[in-house]
Amino acid sequence: MGSDDAYLLTASEALAKIRAGGMTIEGYVRSLLRRIDVRDVDVGAWAYIDKDYILQQARALDKVPMSRRGPLHGMPIAVKDVIYTKDMPTAHNSPIYKDDFPKLDAASIILLRHAGALFLGNLPSTAILMSLSLAYPVNLGKTTTAEFAASYTGPASTRNPHNPARTPGGSSSGSGAAVGDFQAPVALGTQTGGSTIRPGSFNGVYSIKPTWNAVSREGLKISSLMLDTIGIFARGVDDLDLVADAFGLQDDEASAFTGIKGARFALCKTVVWTMAGEGTRHAIARAVDILRAHGAEVEEVDLPREFDDLPRWHNIVLQTEGETFFLPEHRVAKEKLSPQLVGYVDRKAGYDRRAQLKALDSISALRPKIDEIAGRYTAILTPSVIDEAPEGLEFTGDSAFCVSWSALHTPVINVPGFQGHTGMPIGVSLVAPRYRDRHLLKVAKEVGKLFEAEGGWKRNA
Amino acid sequence: MGSDDAYLLTASEALAKIRAGGMTIEGYVRSLLRRIDVRDVDVGAWAYIDKDYILQQARALDKVPMSRRGPLHGMPIAVKDVIYTKDMPTAHNSPIYKDDFPKLDAASIILLRHAGALFLGNLPSTAILMSLSLAYPVNLGKTTTAEFAASYTGPASTRNPHNPARTPGGSSSGSGAAVGDFQAPVALGTQTGGSTIRPGSFNGVYSIKPTWNAVSREGLKISSLMLDTIGIFARGVDDLDLVADAFGLQDDEASAFTGIKGARFALCKTVVWTMAGEGTRHAIARAVDILRAHGAEVEEVDLPREFDDLPRWHNIVLQTEGETFFLPEHRVAKEKLSPQLVGYVDRKAGYDRRAQLKALDSISALRPKIDEIAGRYTAILTPSVIDEAPEGLEFTGDSAFCVSWSALHTPVINVPGFQGHTGMPIGVSLVAPRYRDRHLLKVAKEVGKLFEAEGGWKRNA
Repeated sequence: MGSDDAYLLTASEALAKIRAGGMTIEGYVRSLLRRIDVRDVDVGAWAYIDKDYILQQARALDKVPMSRRGPLHGMPIAVKDVIYTKDMPTAHNSPIYKDDFPKLDAASIILLRHAGALFLGNLPSTAILMSLSLAYPVNLGKTTTAEFAASYTGPASTRNPHNPARTPGGSSSGSGAAVGDFQAPVALGTQTGGSTIRPGSFNGVYSIKPTWNAVSREGLKISSLMLDTIGIFARGVDDLDLVADAFGLQDDEASAFTGIKGARFALCKTVVWTMAGEGTRHAIARAVDILRAHGAEVEEVDLPREFDDLPRWHNIVLQTEGETFFLPEHRVAKEKLSPQLVGYVDRKAGYDRRAQLKALDSISALRPKIDEIAGRYTAILTPSVIDEAPEGLEFTGDSAFCVSWSALHTPVINVPGFQGHTGMPIGVSLVAPRYRDRHLLKVAKEVGKLFEAEGGWKRNA
Repeated sequence: MGSDDAYLLTASEALAKIRAGGMTIEGYVRSLLRRIDVRDVDVGAWAYIDKDYILQQARALDKVPMSRRGPLHGMPIAVKDVIYTKDMPTAHNSPIYKDDFPKLDAASIILLRHAGALFLGNLPSTAILMSLSLAYPVNLGKTTTAEFAASYTGPASTRNPHNPARTPGGSSSGSGAAVGDFQAPVALGTQTGGSTIRPGSFNGVYSIKPTWNAVSREGLKISSLMLDTIGIFARGVDDLDLVADAFGLQDDEASAFTGIKGARFALCKTVVWTMAGEGTRHAIARAVDILRAHGAEVEEVDLPREFDDLPRWHNIVLQTEGETFFLPEHRVAKEKLSPQLVGYVDRKAGYDRRAQLKALDSISALRPKIDEIAGRYTAILTPSVIDEAPEGLEFTGDSAFCVSWSALHTPVINVPGFQGHTGMPIGVSLVAPRYRDRHLLKVAKEVGKLFEAEGGWKRNA
């Protein structure tokens, strides 16, 4: 494979090739830009992209001696357009913030840039921060999002790369689509309900919603403080690991997981199982069969009845926190805010602060309980979505299978490998106790190998 | 009183005078600037101030017809230098962010600006946001802070206006000192441990830490996500009410409080009472006597034993969340970060994620319980500080009496009126259940009248 097809590589593969001298960063980035040129009109994953700037970054990075490069040096990354980047505007898919350009890097962006910026170590720190505007890794651009990562309506421009008549999911629509379509190896998204796991499933990629608060959310505009989490998209678990390293994600103790054989999975169909369509039912059944065929135990586990209220508690927290966090936009430019978000501030659903506290406190009480339950198993296996990506671009799909885990703050990874009845990708989720993110990544890597090999769906460029 | 002495007014008094045509905004602001000129060398409350810009704002505001002015039109406000303002740099008292200038207004700043910006309503929204860079109310400047509002070491420049050999408290040092010294009528601060209540007490002003999450923290740099709260300083409860209105603070139901006579207060000395010095013991005793003399019941209430762990849980949350939120600065410029914050990231105290979750979940379980207990009374009466402001500027004072309420997310108001044995001001705290902020303000207004009249300390300019 020459540089021409380099867009097909995962980030880990590309970085290894660059380090081995087999490809320049500019060559790699040019391959991605050609892919974007060909595909952008059909997919529309980008809210902001500046090709000259990307090439300028790549050429500057190529000049850095190998000995002074950080672990992510030259890794191209796409960033959901609700995360502040001081080298690009951040518009939240809202006319209120059209062309807004806060000169601020989110904490996640600082960590990523720094992972490639070792050679700046001797400069004074102000200079370091200034220099970080020049991205290491390569900041490819900002990806489309549902309005404020909160609206159920997708960005009108973005289509599922596997079928342009279908939604790529949301709210991290562009991040899921760009990675699924080989336009970027890695992307950042966010999840408040199902905004990382759902587009992961719909676009046939791996996506992780880490433990809430394990990665600093500084510089990610708030939709719901108790729910929003930075998410990561990639086409391989190795790439998720690269970003997890940069983010400093670590468990208290090393994972004892040694392989699928002898592992124990809890199948949690959850209270919303009746919503599962044929594609998801098939995917879960195949997943169970594959795991068992490779020597794992899979035990169906019904969560205690008190967990049944989680979707309702989640919705109350979402709406009542939205009242607080969208108040500024409601005051300043209500007419430019979608009716859904206006409704949060106007309390259309009728939830008052007492309802909010009841929901918050009830969810809090369940968190140590799910840690205890999940801790008995290698991982929980549970649906990511109700089915393959639905037709149309307006509605980004149902997050019914995601919201409980978002509320519980557990890490969740979508593992691709299955398909729906029209051949669209479907993934399933693995869940672990809070702050067992690295264990979960380790498990997902082995599980993913099996699901991708035997699940029935093949990723095609 | 002419414009010369206008700096002595509360914001409510000044705005009424301006609305009545008795004073221009420029005249008011010039009075404050003269006060600042005289006092700044002794107090050092400002991290950033641009007098020409303040006058420019004032003159522009004076040109707006009365009929088109918002409720806070022309109200000068000082802002703690950890809250982003798009018209002024934000440096967090950290060399890492020296002269940093993110072009972003915090949610709290947008709400305050908008409260005076009715006349902009017909412009397109982008233009509105751009125009908001010109402040209504008047953005007086940025006030000094402990490093990232997190370090126990005060800003070296800032002195207590009532005695320059003593600390103004922290971490909202400049906000407390500026309001206590009549350099600003109102200021924004933050509280993670005791950073709003303690400087309120030390500087002899009212200060409120609202219910956690009741005011959007967007644009306030994160120290601890589960603890940080925007705070407000003023020399009268009417002024706190003005800002609370702009922030949209509202209770589910109107307060039933009608006056001190017949009100019921719970005196909570808390588990750290043995730390209380003579000044605080005297203040609490006087407060109880005054309330009883005016017909209130005061009942001493021991919180259940499970509340005794709160100071320890608070400290664990503070340090372990600090590990997440100061990781970017630790990676980029560890040598410019104070040893205390480096220690959070390096886990000097040895707290792992399991300890963090235990602390978070344990605190969560206590929140509905304190709501229930506090809900039985008009308010809880409890110490604000261990004693009057200590000598020296290095250490900003102990937050022992504040941290439990910060962890519990309840609203707290410091009410001034008492003094220590050297004559320095001492306040006491009133506490209510979560989201009973407006009730608490109503109670504090009546309680404050009594304490200021009969508590023994007099505010002098």
